[in-house]
Amino acid sequence: METRGTKRTAEVIEDSKNDTSNKRQKTSEENETEVKVQDIAHLMRIDSINMTNASGSGHPTSCSSMAELLSTVFFHPSGMKFNPHTPRGFENDKFVLSKGHAAPILYSAWSHAGHVPKEELMNLRKIDNDLEGHPTPRLDFIDVATGSLGQGLNAGVGMAYSMKYFEKVSNKVFCLLGDGEMAEGSNWEAMNFASFYKLDNLVTILDINRLGQSDETSLGHSVDVYEKRFDAFGFHTFVVDGHSVSEIVKALEDSKNITDKPIAILAKTIKGKYFLEKADKQPWHGKPLGGESSPVVENIEKMIQDKNASIIPQTPESEAKEPEHTELAVPECKYNVGDFVATRKAFGECAKLLGDQSNLVVGVDADVKNSTMLQFLKDAHPDQFIDCFIAEQNMVGAAIGAGVRGRIPFCSTFATFFTRAFDHIRMGAISQCNVKFVGSHCGVSIGADGPSQMGLEDIAMFRTVPNCVVFYPSDSVSTFHATTLAANHKGMVFIRTGRPEAKTIYKNDEEFKIGQSKVTLSSEDDKITLVGAGVTFTAASEAAEKLKEAGTNVRIIDLFCVKPIDKETLVKSAQETNNTILVIEDHYPEGGLFEAVCSAVASEGVKVHSLAVNDVPRSGKPKELLAKYKIDCDAVVEKVKELTS
Amino acid sequence: METRGTKRTAEVIEDSKNDTSNKRQKTSEENETEVKVQDIAHLMRIDSINMTNASGSGHPTSCSSMAELLSTVFFHPSGMKFNPHTPRGFENDKFVLSKGHAAPILYSAWSHAGHVPKEELMNLRKIDNDLEGHPTPRLDFIDVATGSLGQGLNAGVGMAYSMKYFEKVSNKVFCLLGDGEMAEGSNWEAMNFASFYKLDNLVTILDINRLGQSDETSLGHSVDVYEKRFDAFGFHTFVVDGHSVSEIVKALEDSKNITDKPIAILAKTIKGKYFLEKADKQPWHGKPLGGESSPVVENIEKMIQDKNASIIPQTPESEAKEPEHTELAVPECKYNVGDFVATRKAFGECAKLLGDQSNLVVGVDADVKNSTMLQFLKDAHPDQFIDCFIAEQNMVGAAIGAGVRGRIPFCSTFATFFTRAFDHIRMGAISQCNVKFVGSHCGVSIGADGPSQMGLEDIAMFRTVPNCVVFYPSDSVSTFHATTLAANHKGMVFIRTGRPEAKTIYKNDEEFKIGQSKVTLSSEDDKITLVGAGVTFTAASEAAEKLKEAGTNVRIIDLFCVKPIDKETLVKSAQETNNTILVIEDHYPEGGLFEAVCSAVASEGVKVHSLAVNDVPRSGKPKELLAKYKIDCDAVVEKVKELTS
Repeated sequence: METRGTKRTAEVIEDSKNDTSNKRQKTSEENETEVKVQDIAHLMRIDSINMTNASGSGHPTSCSSMAELLSTVFFHPSGMKFNPHTPRGFENDKFVLSKGHAAPILYSAWSHAGHVPKEELMNLRKIDNDLEGHPTPRLDFIDVATGSLGQGLNAGVGMAYSMKYFEKVSNKVFCLLGDGEMAEGSNWEAMNFASFYKLDNLVTILDINRLGQSDETSLGHSVDVYEKRFDAFGFHTFVVDGHSVSEIVKALEDSKNITDKPIAILAKTIKGKYFLEKADKQPWHGKPLGGESSPVVENIEKMIQDKNASIIPQTPESEAKEPEHTELAVPECKYNVGDFVATRKAFGECAKLLGDQSNLVVGVDADVKNSTMLQFLKDAHPDQFIDCFIAEQNMVGAAIGAGVRGRIPFCSTFATFFTRAFDHIRMGAISQCNVKFVGSHCGVSIGADGPSQMGLEDIAMFRTVPNCVVFYPSDSVSTFHATTLAANHKGMVFIRTGRPEAKTIYKNDEEFKIGQSKVTLSSEDDKITLVGAGVTFTAASEAAEKLKEAGTNVRIIDLFCVKPIDKETLVKSAQETNNTILVIEDHYPEGGLFEAVCSAVASEGVKVHSLAVNDVPRSGKPKELLAKYKIDCDAVVEKVKELTS
Repeated sequence: METRGTKRTAEVIEDSKNDTSNKRQKTSEENETEVKVQDIAHLMRIDSINMTNASGSGHPTSCSSMAELLSTVFFHPSGMKFNPHTPRGFENDKFVLSKGHAAPILYSAWSHAGHVPKEELMNLRKIDNDLEGHPTPRLDFIDVATGSLGQGLNAGVGMAYSMKYFEKVSNKVFCLLGDGEMAEGSNWEAMNFASFYKLDNLVTILDINRLGQSDETSLGHSVDVYEKRFDAFGFHTFVVDGHSVSEIVKALEDSKNITDKPIAILAKTIKGKYFLEKADKQPWHGKPLGGESSPVVENIEKMIQDKNASIIPQTPESEAKEPEHTELAVPECKYNVGDFVATRKAFGECAKLLGDQSNLVVGVDADVKNSTMLQFLKDAHPDQFIDCFIAEQNMVGAAIGAGVRGRIPFCSTFATFFTRAFDHIRMGAISQCNVKFVGSHCGVSIGADGPSQMGLEDIAMFRTVPNCVVFYPSDSVSTFHATTLAANHKGMVFIRTGRPEAKTIYKNDEEFKIGQSKVTLSSEDDKITLVGAGVTFTAASEAAEKLKEAGTNVRIIDLFCVKPIDKETLVKSAQETNNTILVIEDHYPEGGLFEAVCSAVASEGVKVHSLAVNDVPRSGKPKELLAKYKIDCDAVVEKVKELTS
């Protein structure tokens, strides 16, 4: 208790001025404001009860533990500065509710701020209303979707980083987390990041209500342990009673004196606070009070001084503005037909050239930039780059956050290490994010490092993401086009790049579109259509030469865009080549090129065959591995002979 | 420097006995042993240089920073107790190399221990040798694959938990991590877990060599910050010079007095230690020394006292034995045909009954056991359960670790939250793990919670995992069979369970097999085959009745086993029903049931059509959502009419 509301020992001197100011008596106006904030907290509590009763599901007890925290941050002058009528405005301070299941009280706060009509609240979770069970940017006051725990802070640090370093503006990010989600490692990734970058514009608020869904959390009400951990991770911490508006106000005020450190307000709270015998009790997670609401509501109403209490939020002072996006031109690719260059290298070069065109193009890396070749962008534009160290979840979250602030983030690691952040990527789709993911080191063609480093499920993963564009370029020129198309496309994109050198096959003036494949070889006498990309496009092309010598013509499709897929070209080619397609891919067969092609032609009765990596691979030289897993030229020749005999 | 090799203040009293013992002079024998350990460290350094030169790739500088740490743990009497000739033996202490890219020096250690022939080392990374770029259990001395950073400790805590609580044996787990990977949140999940469960049989060794792949780590050589963080996470920490055998020995000896806390040895090291001008320099990550080796090798050789130094590891004292697995019988399912019960509930009941049969059946949960219904197992057998709190990566790692110790782990959360652990699941396949994953709350049929909670990519994800069996039962009886088949199957399994109640359709004596689907409705006049599972099996069955009334007979397949898929039944049914299949699924179309079926029949020219969730869904009632996303009875009827008209 002795540290409650006070600063840590190490900062006593720098905060001494503030200490004094806090010892003075509050003015009556200040007292009145705090009473109003408390009233609004209680009104929001009641809203949460009524809303979840109306929907028949939801988490009123999780709302109640954070009522004073939310009310103070939203409405007290020590809290956020924002215009509630233009919530997307870049000048506003931003609020992220990481514990997304407490959505009802957040909706209620936006209602008390004047943005959401009060009557609308009772439509919570209805199919024709955007006040969903967990917040999504279908609502104009939500920047990132939450609901999968331990993701809010990752996006939050991305937003705060952008404000402080890219935009150089004074806005703050307030991120409220539940204590249960502190078990998620992603939060500690974000915290390491936040302190490394001295994000003093980030205010993290922890609602320590002790109870998870099925059990007590691992730390219960041990606020001191949270304090120790946040402190060790470089935060300036304030410990408060989360139901005392006055203590929260003091922490928020004191936090304004902290520079060079992110802020943490660690609030001891009660789940279901003021819910009578339901408070601090286990079986009340995610349950509306229903028929048992009345005594609880009465109990809360008794404490309200003014049922019409309202406060207009503080006007923003930041001059941040949403940046304008202009169409980026495809940079000149210096390679000529026949030149050998790895697509990962071409990507890095193009990213750098796009960065020359616009400072909105930023790189986001997790300590592999010298492998993905995003290094080229950093070398040329160190101020357009976020180093995230080896922490892929936070890397993706930070990219999502930077995207919210109008950047065009190229977020790159080994293709397979995006699996580490699949939940963040999945939530990125619900967040309608604008991140360009680039995965290098795909498939067995990387060679001796072995299966742990090989992307063999990355296409399957990104294909499941609704509306995500998936490119898999086979040469330098098409990589330049994929990269530029990605930058100009509003939405999620995945580009798969390769480690081995690949022959440049397209001229610089070749046109590429989203959803378009290229027929690179055809005759009127093709016996089969071969579909490949990257190293398997090379294998197919080489096989075509050998097969032609042996008297068999084949058609070759460079798939280029895996999603949306070029159904028209695939079906037309199949129909002209005995209704038969062979798909070759450096990927597991499930969810990759083969199934993408199957899916596209399935309704047409086309026969589709597969050459793919069918087991956990191993170390070896790239050529040996392509041969062993039967996706090289010889394997294609053999399979085509079998299919056309 | 003042804390180097000494205990933390808080433990001074309990360690005082030990302090005294460490103040005495070492015997000449003890000194000789330390010299030998140092010699072996140098010999392993040279091995690592030669091995990576032979393979032309690899990470000699990352090996060199941990040479003394590894040598001391393997060979000094204060370190591991193990029989190097029976490395899989349950009686051994276990070693996990989380920084898997330092594999060469680990292989060298097993060579110096007498298990790997010295000449074999030079076959590193060759395609016909199991000494791969990163360690996998293809080698009998590796328990879990590493190489994707930040996973070793997750498996390590699972092994340590099993030893301490399930097996009640005295073995220890030694886990060596790199400092770069400490940015991965998964490690902090493991650490929170380790201290909560007081895993004093876990010795975590951190190789703080300052340098990552592309940059310095976020904390560089700030060993004090690591110490603060490990301490805050409940570890007993020892700070040592990682190149001083004597300091490492002291820490290992002192650690034996620590009870009720996991141990951390935080070692300040130099990347490329003794590599002359290459030491502590950035561009030497992952690069063999090649032509620049000679002066480095000479420099190291000069320091070696005895080129033939060798030590026989300490004999294990633990009486741990590998448990015998006996075939589990399918428990009697209490539901009769026509009874309504959610498959998640049936799963929980079956898991409990399997737990009655064998104490090797254990539950692994991340605070949703009252939703997945694994709660039934915990209630009946609290000693067969691991609560992991909200930390899915560590949950999966802990399950993998428990599996290594002969348990049969049922690891369960919401289907979509397994995306959080995809990288761990992917590595689980390389680890040849024996985990049974059970994902509840699949699809839009969960209703009002909204898209963040809906599993819509889980089948796609688990299908990419090589050799993973994927079950999707539609009723209680088939869920009992899937659960029992999973328990008896050696390898990875995923079972998808549902939230809504489902009608029991099979009798208890129905037989089910891996790779088998069920035709539940057929006539000689079927116009089309409908394939579904879970709620879409119900939709298809209801549609069949309506269609029959309208004069159209259809065939129904309850897919049951999605992988391996029952190609024979699918092709035969299609051939008997106008070569046409309609797949209905509560999942995104990519990588799910539709593409699984496409893939199975693709070579036969069958026409396959899809009804699936084609966009990010939203909150609503289950029935409303099934209708909105066109996967309910009415949608099936409409689609069949369109396809058969």
